[in-house]
Amino acid sequence: MADINSPVEIGVTTGPIRGSRKVYVGARTGSGIRVAMREIDLEGDEPSVRVYDTSGPYTDTDANIDINAGLPGLRSDWIHARGDVEEYDGREVKPEDNGQLGPDRSGGVPQFPNVVKRPLRAKAGHNVSQMHYARKGIITPEMEYVAERENLGRELAADFKRDGESWGAQIPDVITPEFVRDEVARGRAIIPNNINHPESEPMAIGRNFLVKINANIGNSAVASDVATEVDKMVWATRWGADTIMDLSTGRNIHDTREWIIRNSAVPVGTVPIYQALEKVGGVAEDLTWEIFRDTLIEQAEQGVDYFTIHAGVRLAYVPMAAKRVTGIVSRGGSIMAKWCLAHHKESFLYEHFDDITQIMKAYDIAYSLGDGLRPGSIADANDEAQFSELYTLGELTHRAWEQDVQVMIEGPGHVPMHKIKENMEKQLQVCGEAPFYTLGPLVTDIAPGYDHITSGIGAAQIGWYGTAMLCYVTPKEHLGLPDRDDVKVGVVTYKLAAHAADIAKGHPAAKVRDDALSKARFEFRWRDQFNLSLDPETAEEFHDQTLPAEGAKTAHFCSMCGPKFCSMQISQEVRDFAAKQNESPESFLAAEKLGAETAEASRQAAIKGMEEMSKLYDEKGRELYLPEG
Amino acid sequence: MADINSPVEIGVTTGPIRGSRKVYVGARTGSGIRVAMREIDLEGDEPSVRVYDTSGPYTDTDANIDINAGLPGLRSDWIHARGDVEEYDGREVKPEDNGQLGPDRSGGVPQFPNVVKRPLRAKAGHNVSQMHYARKGIITPEMEYVAERENLGRELAADFKRDGESWGAQIPDVITPEFVRDEVARGRAIIPNNINHPESEPMAIGRNFLVKINANIGNSAVASDVATEVDKMVWATRWGADTIMDLSTGRNIHDTREWIIRNSAVPVGTVPIYQALEKVGGVAEDLTWEIFRDTLIEQAEQGVDYFTIHAGVRLAYVPMAAKRVTGIVSRGGSIMAKWCLAHHKESFLYEHFDDITQIMKAYDIAYSLGDGLRPGSIADANDEAQFSELYTLGELTHRAWEQDVQVMIEGPGHVPMHKIKENMEKQLQVCGEAPFYTLGPLVTDIAPGYDHITSGIGAAQIGWYGTAMLCYVTPKEHLGLPDRDDVKVGVVTYKLAAHAADIAKGHPAAKVRDDALSKARFEFRWRDQFNLSLDPETAEEFHDQTLPAEGAKTAHFCSMCGPKFCSMQISQEVRDFAAKQNESPESFLAAEKLGAETAEASRQAAIKGMEEMSKLYDEKGRELYLPEG
Repeated sequence: MADINSPVEIGVTTGPIRGSRKVYVGARTGSGIRVAMREIDLEGDEPSVRVYDTSGPYTDTDANIDINAGLPGLRSDWIHARGDVEEYDGREVKPEDNGQLGPDRSGGVPQFPNVVKRPLRAKAGHNVSQMHYARKGIITPEMEYVAERENLGRELAADFKRDGESWGAQIPDVITPEFVRDEVARGRAIIPNNINHPESEPMAIGRNFLVKINANIGNSAVASDVATEVDKMVWATRWGADTIMDLSTGRNIHDTREWIIRNSAVPVGTVPIYQALEKVGGVAEDLTWEIFRDTLIEQAEQGVDYFTIHAGVRLAYVPMAAKRVTGIVSRGGSIMAKWCLAHHKESFLYEHFDDITQIMKAYDIAYSLGDGLRPGSIADANDEAQFSELYTLGELTHRAWEQDVQVMIEGPGHVPMHKIKENMEKQLQVCGEAPFYTLGPLVTDIAPGYDHITSGIGAAQIGWYGTAMLCYVTPKEHLGLPDRDDVKVGVVTYKLAAHAADIAKGHPAAKVRDDALSKARFEFRWRDQFNLSLDPETAEEFHDQTLPAEGAKTAHFCSMCGPKFCSMQISQEVRDFAAKQNESPESFLAAEKLGAETAEASRQAAIKGMEEMSKLYDEKGRELYLPEG
Repeated sequence: MADINSPVEIGVTTGPIRGSRKVYVGARTGSGIRVAMREIDLEGDEPSVRVYDTSGPYTDTDANIDINAGLPGLRSDWIHARGDVEEYDGREVKPEDNGQLGPDRSGGVPQFPNVVKRPLRAKAGHNVSQMHYARKGIITPEMEYVAERENLGRELAADFKRDGESWGAQIPDVITPEFVRDEVARGRAIIPNNINHPESEPMAIGRNFLVKINANIGNSAVASDVATEVDKMVWATRWGADTIMDLSTGRNIHDTREWIIRNSAVPVGTVPIYQALEKVGGVAEDLTWEIFRDTLIEQAEQGVDYFTIHAGVRLAYVPMAAKRVTGIVSRGGSIMAKWCLAHHKESFLYEHFDDITQIMKAYDIAYSLGDGLRPGSIADANDEAQFSELYTLGELTHRAWEQDVQVMIEGPGHVPMHKIKENMEKQLQVCGEAPFYTLGPLVTDIAPGYDHITSGIGAAQIGWYGTAMLCYVTPKEHLGLPDRDDVKVGVVTYKLAAHAADIAKGHPAAKVRDDALSKARFEFRWRDQFNLSLDPETAEEFHDQTLPAEGAKTAHFCSMCGPKFCSMQISQEVRDFAAKQNESPESFLAAEKLGAETAEASRQAAIKGMEEMSKLYDEKGRELYLPEG
């Protein structure tokens, strides 16, 4: 076993995504904040396309990546400048935090060599959540960063035509820091960033922002390999994961998580009940509030940005799952259900909710109110158990908001298409428009092995209806643990679903990328097409080299002449006029309308004009598309 | 080069799909017609699940597969029994039919050894289309077959609760032959089956039937390999393709097609303009009506069941594509656009439409009215060019119906989610509810390499809205030619999308499979879960052997006691009553309502009851789910 304190060899993927380069855009406020994005340069005079970038410094050729050191503390100065935090002697790491029974650490994994000895927390009487600042009218650097990030650093063209159906969302043409503040103050968006995770690049989750995606990583009882999990985190964020959740359930949970958070440019979520369960040897009934609370502090000090808390799995709801086809499929939900049945008491998470909130506000950790009673099959969708829990999550949302603590709401699951909208509408109504964060939903159960697709279909729809973040599903769902390739496929599937939702909602900037790619495709600029796509490597790999390779710009033959010169083109004006007469354009132009002489003259002119165009077409080489100029 | 007449070694995949066995169900009319389906047997007492089966005799262990002989003429007797067809000396096969300039066949592929020398056509004055029979009030054996096939051979439970949103479709609980006749008579469904393709198992394409999918196969200019194409046809139908289209564009188109049709249990469609173009050496301007007509006859005699005809690409519409980002992406559309521009005349397909119809009615070939001006990018969706063509397709639909010729309408393409519904509504309105047959649509352009998914999202939605058939897209779309694996992924993706649409529409029998699979999943009956899935092999391959393997049936702890005995369950009756009082159940049960003494007594009873249940839970082993009995 290597010396526990020697540098660990962890290989992660670095270097730019093919065709992109990292840029840092100065916030227009002039504050000096620089927002990370990436730009895709195209051939010739085509303007570069700037895209949202979750990959962090790993894709920055100028960055010096040292996994043993962690990422730079991007937000440290901002956090300290607010003057409302203090360092303190953090909790001692205990052997059970890593699933070990004694002080002997052998059999564990190497500790992260640069653990912060004294974590931060709010000074007494202070609340460090972004929601608290927002409600005090303060625009934080995090909010500025988010505004610039969502705009992709440019003013939108004044003549941009909005085109979409947002079902009542309020997406502005330009995102301002003030807009961000207002959305966070209302609870309609969250900026998840624990004061002990200064390495993260701020991002917003909310209906009026770009739809976000989450990727799950984490070890299992079988494998406890730090290198694999850190690599998966870097890999998932490379391809577009906006947050990751560390769902480790095996050993070395604490140490593994430290490596991940210190090296993660995106917010990190967890389900603390998993680690708490490990501390009681996997016996749900032995869980106590004290053990759970201690686990929350432990994870808060490390810097976890959001906690999934299954406080909606109440004793009274557990029997409702008895009539289901697939019962309770949520791991956290099962754990709490067992506890409730064993003790026949109300859930301790529900009972101690306000105590949990006090911890959240001291570190700025957001709630992800868990859907422990989500449906795990089409048959169980939208049932009494599911909506009873949602009703309670609404109640808890308002209780958390009374303390200015950020909240998002987790959602299903397995839902057939015709039942998806009801989920969105109920959630908006009951939870005061808190951001919705769904797992898919899968729209049919019959395709294990393809559940990234069955759920991608539901995710695109519920994203369109207003869901703020989509938790990815990989091809291994229901079957096994995802490997690296599965993680990538899951991430790209969810990026395309989220993007399709942005387009459908009429997000002002979404279509830019589609248009640039389609133009490149039309002009056979293959390299540009690949570089603009979500996965340039796969696109190139699939590309058949025997396909046409013209690189020159092309233009439709007709556009050379212009519409005025095309004798047979029935102009748009004529069409409009004909439509007003409730006629087809052809009959409108018929002799009866124009007068016989005029019609005949028109016809002759048309015939002559057509002969001329036919000749011109032949001269030009008989191609539909020609080089410009 | 092998002797042109020796048997060809063509390897196709035979044998049952894992977990399924072929069954033949006698039509309830007692006519003796037996409909092919497959049944999935499950463990223990679980009832077998019967599913729709497109794989033909290839998955029948009792069938004797001989590619050189072709499939049995399932429908031959029915066709002849109608007494309205005659054999005749068919057209001679010409060298240009196979892309060769002289009589020397070397360099070609082996001919199918059992070509029918004298094809069938309608007797003079007769119309052999299913629509004609339907309009005369005749229920054909094909219609019977379809009815039984769509019902999956059983009466639906009388108490089945319909649950869906069909947007005005008319899906009956049970499909009767009379219902099929009526749908075909109205033109709302088609049964594509050329009298020269008696090997096909009849199927219906229509909004009120199960949503169908099509897989494209066919060679290219580069590869001309009969074995590959026949294998792809068998492979695609094995995994669920309801029809296939042979889109060959290279050499040996005629001979390749013969092998395919003779061995295909599903309808086969083509785009005749492709072969016509080969006959004029690839020069679109040299196409003539005569060459095209001759090609139609050639393909009709072989047995093609539906023709894509781009008669909607009219001269006046071509300039409308000039302002597009991706112009004209349809190959057939481009060909016709070039022809129109070269001659500056109206499309010869449009001008000769009624002549084409005369051919269709003599063989019972269905129109697939082509969407030559479909949008090839999000930017071009729902534009003037696209809907102008649709308007013309509506006109042509009614013209074809005047001759009792079956019609379906092709559709887009690339359409963002918020514009999908408009497509369905316009098509229903303009085309008299003729079946809609779309290519996706893709809901974003930015994910080449994943376009089976970007289009699966749109396909599921437009299928839900009423589209009758979905043309698959593979991961290679826009990039290269699909191989065998791509074909399978495309088919399974489109099967799950079509099935999700069936569920959302409230198709009475759709959910049966999802429920059976979810039950198997819940009970850890892994083998059953795999066998019920669309791709059992992949599901098993992905399955992690370390996951739990309990095989025993399980039941929720609470269901042992039953809801009456759970002290803390707030019963549904109380909930309902509380809801009527516009209160939450909790407050309803509060002391104020019940009276203090009753409330206290209730509380004490509840506490005692809960302690008892807690003890019982402990005795039973502290598990949420227990063996039944």
